[in-house]
Amino acid sequence: MLLMQQRILRDGVVRDGNILAVDSFLNHQMDPELYQEMGREFYRLFGGCGVTKILTVEASGIGIACVAAQLFGCPALFAKKGRTKNLGGEVYAAQVESYTHGGSYTILVSKRFLSPGDRVLLLDDFLARGSAMLGLMDLVAQSGAALVGCGVAIEKGFQEGGRLLRERGVRVESLAIIQQMDQGRITFA
Amino acid sequence: MLLMQQRILRDGVVRDGNILAVDSFLNHQMDPELYQEMGREFYRLFGGCGVTKILTVEASGIGIACVAAQLFGCPALFAKKGRTKNLGGEVYAAQVESYTHGGSYTILVSKRFLSPGDRVLLLDDFLARGSAMLGLMDLVAQSGAALVGCGVAIEKGFQEGGRLLRERGVRVESLAIIQQMDQGRITFA
Repeated sequence: MLLMQQRILRDGVVRDGNILAVDSFLNHQMDPELYQEMGREFYRLFGGCGVTKILTVEASGIGIACVAAQLFGCPALFAKKGRTKNLGGEVYAAQVESYTHGGSYTILVSKRFLSPGDRVLLLDDFLARGSAMLGLMDLVAQSGAALVGCGVAIEKGFQEGGRLLRERGVRVESLAIIQQMDQGRITFA
Repeated sequence: MLLMQQRILRDGVVRDGNILAVDSFLNHQMDPELYQEMGREFYRLFGGCGVTKILTVEASGIGIACVAAQLFGCPALFAKKGRTKNLGGEVYAAQVESYTHGGSYTILVSKRFLSPGDRVLLLDDFLARGSAMLGLMDLVAQSGAALVGCGVAIEKGFQEGGRLLRERGVRVESLAIIQQMDQGRITFA
């Protein structure tokens, strides 16, 4: 998506440790027009796949999932990190390794909201090593639902996540794939 | 908002400890039509107030803020819980007491995204004791921005948050105000 590439070039900031800061428009402050266009693009890509549920993980994916859900006309669902008192009943759980924060954490969804009849689209802001997406795929597999594919705003093409998912036969659609972030200069695949 | 009241009566579940579970449509699974109507109602209430930024706190407020931001045509911004590596630079910080999880936590926004010229609308899913809203108000005050008001999906009218905010002269608009949750029976104000 050209708009995403342009926005990354204009407002993205490369920080030490291969961190791309896009907090002015994507994952802290969120630009409404960009979000609308992201939703439209995901709908263009996956709108014909019979999606019944959009699944993401808190926190940055929630806005993307909610705006896209408006277009798909299906519920959005976000996996929670760690157990909270508000999450009653039985849950599907998966482990996710965190490279940003170190360590690992558990993601959970209530069993009431994913079932074998569902066709699930996974959406998230970033795809880097793929750990969050693999965790979400684990939740979908446990539920018996069908995985339609993964949509991400920004894929770090120089990390292994995209390859790991595509090797498993998963359809991955990234709105921008960064090939390289060399000395602050960003090039796209 | 009649639609919110109807939905709470139909799908809300009262659990021990005055917890109202609305995870099938509001804060785990999110209903796209309800979200759209919530956005429209917040826009009807606050659309004429010159809002330049919608501020919420992760995680459950993010979807509401993003969908509303589409209608307001302004950015949404979510305060993060605790410091993350992705949040570079200087931040405004406030403490929030958590009654659901116990203890307290810090919420943060980058100083780049709130400034004295902003007119800020706070949105969240729940207003109970008001601690999250007070924390967000603290962030807004630190930035010098003007507070337009608070919009919440569900206010627990039998807890003190709404009164605390209104006593300070803050405009609070709740889409549903629960007066009582007695033995599982919900009545609205």
